Amino acid sequence: MTDKGNSSLILQDRVSTEVEPDPITKKIFISLPEPGLSDNRADVDRLRQELGRVIGPVDIDLDLMNSISSVLKESGWRATAAVGICDRGWSLVSIEKGDTSGSNFGLAVDIGTTTVVAYLVDMNTGDVIDVEACYNGQVKYGDDILTRIFRAQDHEGAALMQRAIINSLNGLILLLSERNSLKADVDITAVSVGANTTMVHLFLGLDTGNICVAPYIPLVNDPGIIKSEQLGLNVLKKAPVYIFPSVGSYLGGDIIAGILASGMHKRNELALLVDIGTNGEIVMGNAQWMVACAGAAGPALEGGVAASGMRAEQGAVSEIKIDHLTKEVKYHTIGGHAPLGICGSGLVDGIAEMFLAGLIDRSGRFREGRDYLVVVGSSRSGTGKDIVISQQDISNFMRTKGAVNAALELLLESVGCGLGDIERFYAAGAFGHHLDFESAVTLGLYPDLPREKMVKIGNSSGEGARLALMSRKCIEEARRIAANITYFELNANQEFMNKFVSSKFIPHTNMDYYPTVKRRLRERGLLVD
Amino acid sequence: MTDKGNSSLILQDRVSTEVEPDPITKKIFISLPEPGLSDNRADVDRLRQELGRVIGPVDIDLDLMNSISSVLKESGWRATAAVGICDRGWSLVSIEKGDTSGSNFGLAVDIGTTTVVAYLVDMNTGDVIDVEACYNGQVKYGDDILTRIFRAQDHEGAALMQRAIINSLNGLILLLSERNSLKADVDITAVSVGANTTMVHLFLGLDTGNICVAPYIPLVNDPGIIKSEQLGLNVLKKAPVYIFPSVGSYLGGDIIAGILASGMHKRNELALLVDIGTNGEIVMGNAQWMVACAGAAGPALEGGVAASGMRAEQGAVSEIKIDHLTKEVKYHTIGGHAPLGICGSGLVDGIAEMFLAGLIDRSGRFREGRDYLVVVGSSRSGTGKDIVISQQDISNFMRTKGAVNAALELLLESVGCGLGDIERFYAAGAFGHHLDFESAVTLGLYPDLPREKMVKIGNSSGEGARLALMSRKCIEEARRIAANITYFELNANQEFMNKFVSSKFIPHTNMDYYPTVKRRLRERGLLVD
Repeated sequence: MTDKGNSSLILQDRVSTEVEPDPITKKIFISLPEPGLSDNRADVDRLRQELGRVIGPVDIDLDLMNSISSVLKESGWRATAAVGICDRGWSLVSIEKGDTSGSNFGLAVDIGTTTVVAYLVDMNTGDVIDVEACYNGQVKYGDDILTRIFRAQDHEGAALMQRAIINSLNGLILLLSERNSLKADVDITAVSVGANTTMVHLFLGLDTGNICVAPYIPLVNDPGIIKSEQLGLNVLKKAPVYIFPSVGSYLGGDIIAGILASGMHKRNELALLVDIGTNGEIVMGNAQWMVACAGAAGPALEGGVAASGMRAEQGAVSEIKIDHLTKEVKYHTIGGHAPLGICGSGLVDGIAEMFLAGLIDRSGRFREGRDYLVVVGSSRSGTGKDIVISQQDISNFMRTKGAVNAALELLLESVGCGLGDIERFYAAGAFGHHLDFESAVTLGLYPDLPREKMVKIGNSSGEGARLALMSRKCIEEARRIAANITYFELNANQEFMNKFVSSKFIPHTNMDYYPTVKRRLRERGLLVD
Repeated sequence: MTDKGNSSLILQDRVSTEVEPDPITKKIFISLPEPGLSDNRADVDRLRQELGRVIGPVDIDLDLMNSISSVLKESGWRATAAVGICDRGWSLVSIEKGDTSGSNFGLAVDIGTTTVVAYLVDMNTGDVIDVEACYNGQVKYGDDILTRIFRAQDHEGAALMQRAIINSLNGLILLLSERNSLKADVDITAVSVGANTTMVHLFLGLDTGNICVAPYIPLVNDPGIIKSEQLGLNVLKKAPVYIFPSVGSYLGGDIIAGILASGMHKRNELALLVDIGTNGEIVMGNAQWMVACAGAAGPALEGGVAASGMRAEQGAVSEIKIDHLTKEVKYHTIGGHAPLGICGSGLVDGIAEMFLAGLIDRSGRFREGRDYLVVVGSSRSGTGKDIVISQQDISNFMRTKGAVNAALELLLESVGCGLGDIERFYAAGAFGHHLDFESAVTLGLYPDLPREKMVKIGNSSGEGARLALMSRKCIEEARRIAANITYFELNANQEFMNKFVSSKFIPHTNMDYYPTVKRRLRERGLLVD
């Protein structure tokens, strides 16, 4: 992929959560007294005692002992130790001659099923100094997550999947370090990862056999701190790799990272966080409690499934406007290229406009007997074919929306709240980034809140990973969030099925929850009391 | 080597220190609730939580996670976890189906410059169930320690030396496990090692370049807990390997282990521990304080150096008696074989008898102008040559004895005590095991205490290693002993040199410190007041 290609995978939204800097890897410059007959402590013990004085007990791996001795001697006993978190306390990551404490870099990674994004973070300031993205190398073994879970059921398959994602990450590491004149295996002292539960398993080379069968038990939810050499990442061998804990097979560390990035777990207002991708996750709560559910969002919003569907890449129709009087269709493509298809957010935009233009009814059916809308005629499309939104596309979307609505209602009922109690809304992920709030509200996918209460948090998994690099307190918070979330399993939930079946109206069975949509429909004569 | 050959390397003395069993690796049988929709904790987290409940936080290495999942499922959630100490707290060593808690084995190892002894220990009872010994595989690169230190000055040499000792240990492990129907890589859950500082460095693959040059700074004194896989030992990969901490280049973990085994650090009586081998170490103290010094014991007692010298093997003259009237020489050989030479303890025995028979004077010189004594005539020796003790052999011994006396006096003066204050004496190591107390006292190598106050503690390094396997408290004690010992460096000590020069009398410049020797000399008319 070219840089240009990758840049479309990188989301620019970023919630600004301020954290007290307390990075998970610290560089400590030390100046030791030279050994002599009156102070004959051994080299490694001398270093350990000094680090203990500065930061507390530090484990020192056997592998580093030879280099400690030579670095200390060659540097005249003035050296910089990088210490990183381990499961309990600190362990030595590297030792360098002289004072290199000004140069300390970490990698915050979001491993998505389709896309991998790596942020190069200055661990002294917390600033993202560069970012790069690529497709997850596992895609070649299967676009969808189930194919990969199946493939990784045995050790050999799991190892194959692991190599694929590690290679992707090492590619990003190489690119980022070259572009910023760093030596990754010397300068990158820590990695943190936000990923869904399956991606975490595949990243760690763990069997995935039980993730997709009842009772949906992952092999591990909280893998703890892992040393990069165990994974084959081309950063410092002893760099700690922190992985956000999952809650279950379908509520992963990427969502925990997203919650952390949103800050909803620290506020009293009732917030809703929605991340719709291949899977959909919904989290609701505040500083006191949190409930969540998740499920396959269905194929509606995936590139390859809709009649003219494609990924959110160059040439994808991402915005659609329909004049409600003339029914004329206007559109916008990513990169301004000749249109090649419609991406997920374009599809939602189109369906919302079709509804507001009276082309489809509240149940998502075409009013006039037709079964598709031509968005771009064959003469203007880059493929030579009509680009359309079909009745099937709309029906698929209605199922996704129905599932989101049913899940949300289930969560609301479980805590005795109503839609009207929601005080803030966070749209997470790529789909949430591209999707127009107005269209999402129009269709009832998002709640009808004052727009200033609705926030796009972009790649909140990556941003959460950045926070984890910069703050041990954030890692503690993430663990607390994961431990305290009440998770509702939808796969075997009859009440969810009932709600799902009855929730396929645009925007909602009860229009009163959607005052702005109601007003617009009234204005256009589409709703008469 | 044959078993028979090895058996002569294994010392049978053993001090019986009772410890409250608290082994460094514990096997814990757990019966977990099966996961279900109402309890969907992940496999690894489920195990970790249960272990946490039983024993406190347990780190779980990524490498073990796949097997945890399959073992738990295949065993119906009834399994046995072995947890071992790590630098802080516990980490998982293995997981097995069903209840295997009755079968838990450790290996206590004494790595000597020449000999390696491994004790197979039942971790549930503390019993030594088997023992095996072999020569240190590094011997082929050099008998003496300096050659090996020189060889291991670069990484390649250090790796070579490490492979040699690891191969020796793996040979012992194979032999012990086969003989006891164990699978070492499944059943041996822990290893502990007592060794001198150089041997520890070579065992760990560490450069030894600075051990033998002033200011004699080791690379590490306290390496902490290392996982066996890092060393390539053929026991469980995650088995903790505990190594006794050293105090300095010439006071190693073997001595700390010996002190631990003797128990002198827990009593109020003033005790002296002497371990004479290639190096000599002297420790003095009690529960309140401890002082020590060490130095090359010189070549006098090494097999290959004396005129008719050999190692303490089959055919070595190990005991000598001389009739003080007829001057007739009687001797005993190891294994009753035809005599091939004289080992170190035989040499000391012979010199003591020569002194008591009036053949040599108090300064160690032959009285009658001759310069050797024939112990075994050529006609009866297994080599066809005379087996002799030469004036040179005696002079070499006098230097060793002088060094021991000088070091002891230095220690006594440093704490304001005299020889008469010593209340208990521990003879450690192979030389101490073979050496006759009477001969050693006669020559002033050992103090003249009531004989019931003199204790042979045999392979106290190996016994200390056994205690470390069985008791975390002992590991704490060892760390405290090493931290609190005051070590006197003799290599650059002028006072030591002065004492050394003036201490070459048998048994001592001041005969009053040696009442039993004085009495015997009087009885034989060799001493007239």
